[in-house]
Amino acid sequence: MALMVQKFGGSSVRNASCLRRAAQIAAQAQAQGYQVVAVVSAQGDTTDELLARAHQLSPRASGRELDMLLSAGEQMSAALMAIALQQMGCSAVSLTGWQAGLFTDGAYSRARIRSIDTERMESELARSRIVVVAGFQGISRSRNITTLGRGGSDTSAVAIAAALRADVCRIYTDVDGVYTADPRKVAGARLLKEIGFEEMLELAGMGAQVLHVRSVELARKYSIPLEVRSSMTDAPGTCIKEGVGMKGMLIKGVAKDEDVAVVSVRKVKDRPGISLSLLRMLTQHEIHVGIILQSVRRKGTRDILCTMPQAQVPQAQCVLAEHASDFSAEEISVDTDVAKVSVVGAGLQSNAAAAAQLFQALYEQQIAIQMMSCAAMKMSVIIRKQDADRAVAAIHQAFF
Amino acid sequence: MALMVQKFGGSSVRNASCLRRAAQIAAQAQAQGYQVVAVVSAQGDTTDELLARAHQLSPRASGRELDMLLSAGEQMSAALMAIALQQMGCSAVSLTGWQAGLFTDGAYSRARIRSIDTERMESELARSRIVVVAGFQGISRSRNITTLGRGGSDTSAVAIAAALRADVCRIYTDVDGVYTADPRKVAGARLLKEIGFEEMLELAGMGAQVLHVRSVELARKYSIPLEVRSSMTDAPGTCIKEGVGMKGMLIKGVAKDEDVAVVSVRKVKDRPGISLSLLRMLTQHEIHVGIILQSVRRKGTRDILCTMPQAQVPQAQCVLAEHASDFSAEEISVDTDVAKVSVVGAGLQSNAAAAAQLFQALYEQQIAIQMMSCAAMKMSVIIRKQDADRAVAAIHQAFF
Repeated sequence: MALMVQKFGGSSVRNASCLRRAAQIAAQAQAQGYQVVAVVSAQGDTTDELLARAHQLSPRASGRELDMLLSAGEQMSAALMAIALQQMGCSAVSLTGWQAGLFTDGAYSRARIRSIDTERMESELARSRIVVVAGFQGISRSRNITTLGRGGSDTSAVAIAAALRADVCRIYTDVDGVYTADPRKVAGARLLKEIGFEEMLELAGMGAQVLHVRSVELARKYSIPLEVRSSMTDAPGTCIKEGVGMKGMLIKGVAKDEDVAVVSVRKVKDRPGISLSLLRMLTQHEIHVGIILQSVRRKGTRDILCTMPQAQVPQAQCVLAEHASDFSAEEISVDTDVAKVSVVGAGLQSNAAAAAQLFQALYEQQIAIQMMSCAAMKMSVIIRKQDADRAVAAIHQAFF
Repeated sequence: MALMVQKFGGSSVRNASCLRRAAQIAAQAQAQGYQVVAVVSAQGDTTDELLARAHQLSPRASGRELDMLLSAGEQMSAALMAIALQQMGCSAVSLTGWQAGLFTDGAYSRARIRSIDTERMESELARSRIVVVAGFQGISRSRNITTLGRGGSDTSAVAIAAALRADVCRIYTDVDGVYTADPRKVAGARLLKEIGFEEMLELAGMGAQVLHVRSVELARKYSIPLEVRSSMTDAPGTCIKEGVGMKGMLIKGVAKDEDVAVVSVRKVKDRPGISLSLLRMLTQHEIHVGIILQSVRRKGTRDILCTMPQAQVPQAQCVLAEHASDFSAEEISVDTDVAKVSVVGAGLQSNAAAAAQLFQALYEQQIAIQMMSCAAMKMSVIIRKQDADRAVAAIHQAFF
């Protein structure tokens, strides 16, 4: 019997009528002969509301207690989804992360799934029940509730699909699928019928919000075909699978990421490998450096610039301050008024024409490029935040 | 080391400032040298709000899914309470019912605690942590989440106190303690410094809302001294313990219960034991008959009247209809426009003067008594609902 894992995001379960629609989709899949596991996120803004309640009490609540608090959100929506299914005459049961057997490490708020004990899910499926699993959460070896971090319900769904050897994993969301650019911002944005795992990873990493990076990595690792669909229409959206993307359209998408900061370490006393040692130091402290570049040498010093997520800036400043003497930098400055705009596609690096096209498009809009990087499947530029939407539109038009 | 279990009701944790106050109370007890377990209810109206969301989806959601849904309420308040404690510099950890080891039977929405595995709580206490436990919930042998029914957090607290051999169990609520009558309704109502378990049971059973009946039963069974206090003031309230109440004030309180219906079975063909067999039949169907009386015989028939909670009337009607031929009753009628007013105290039954005082007080107010019953520690009358508050005030004045 074929097995389908479905994942419904927060907007797809945000109220009673959305829950009913999601339940209908799950019931339909069952009627088509699938065994169905539905993984649900917390309803609408529940997670943000719970975080606000915690922050009212403490600016830095402990990870353990935050995970205990937030995981209640998915537990509630799982129960409500099961109630909606039962009301339609479907046999359904909701399971928390621990009931579903999702064991994680003990890293609160960003736990990683270590193993899945599928016994309970399988016994419920064997009883012809639709199994509704609270996404985003698991349990550590010491029996504490953990969460997988933002977007973690995608990861729950893919991991469960892998553990149960599901035939397909459908991610239901509030958009029709993966687009060549954000369709709310770029008029000509096109829906991709299919895309390869690699390209999807680059797009997700570059700020395309449709799928969580870790879930795509996991799907690639276990070869689980993903489908992104709208829970409003249930129409075919985008398939993400192996072996797609090396043919056809060169550029697959344009994405914008505003959660980026440029940290400049000014007038570092120059010596060979200085940038590398700085990069290594930041990486050892788990700071995700995106682009790093050094200015030309001037009077024996250089400026070193690197990008990172904004939330990591305070930690980076600590690390840099601690090792200030190693670098004898004169000043560390932070610029958060920037955005990263990226184009993603196969063979970009070896395609000078594509780079030229990109620069031309930005030049015509008089948009200044502050930094740029080029990798196998993506090319990114750092520009002023106010220029970001204009840049995405211009690049999209240039390539599509 | 002395151990105190504290229980904070929904109104005592309803928002950030209430949570902070509750956390202060727990922290203070720890500072006084106690090991502290704090059992919390869901915040304010959370339970009702969650029920409303479920009912939007289904008028009769399954017990399993409702328990899954509702238990999230206590999980959230437990986490928030732990966060409030940590913010004050206290070491604290929150536990769900299953993490705290509360095993129940499988009767969803009214589960009974079967056993408590105290290992986790004890190991957290040994680490000098304040242990915050989500009340009202447990886990069945088949690893499903269960709830103990309304007021069940009291029961959680007392059961945990018994399992951990606590020295005292304090129930924090929004009133100062147990009064001789509802202080919002009766001007002269007095706070009781202490009361015996038996009398408290009668008061609770008679509609005094301060404590859940089952929790008082449990406290009596395991000889756990209870204290009811206000979480606003933390001033000494009412102590409930063994060996109190046989001396001192005869009458301990006056209570009103509006959740009562009178079911009349009219013109039953009379035969010896007819009332007893009707009572037995209803009891077998778990209908809680309060008072039962039969009218004088007239033309070979009698009327039999009995009281029960309003929610059980439909089931009682079913049972009576099913066995109609056994009783050959001509008519079954239901009156819900009634109230039960009770006085509670030691030695009431053998004290004719007390009964006379009660009747006199009602007579002076021109309140008609429809039914009455007298037991070892309580005397109840059924009167019209509109007379209930006046009756309570008059009786209270007569006795105090």
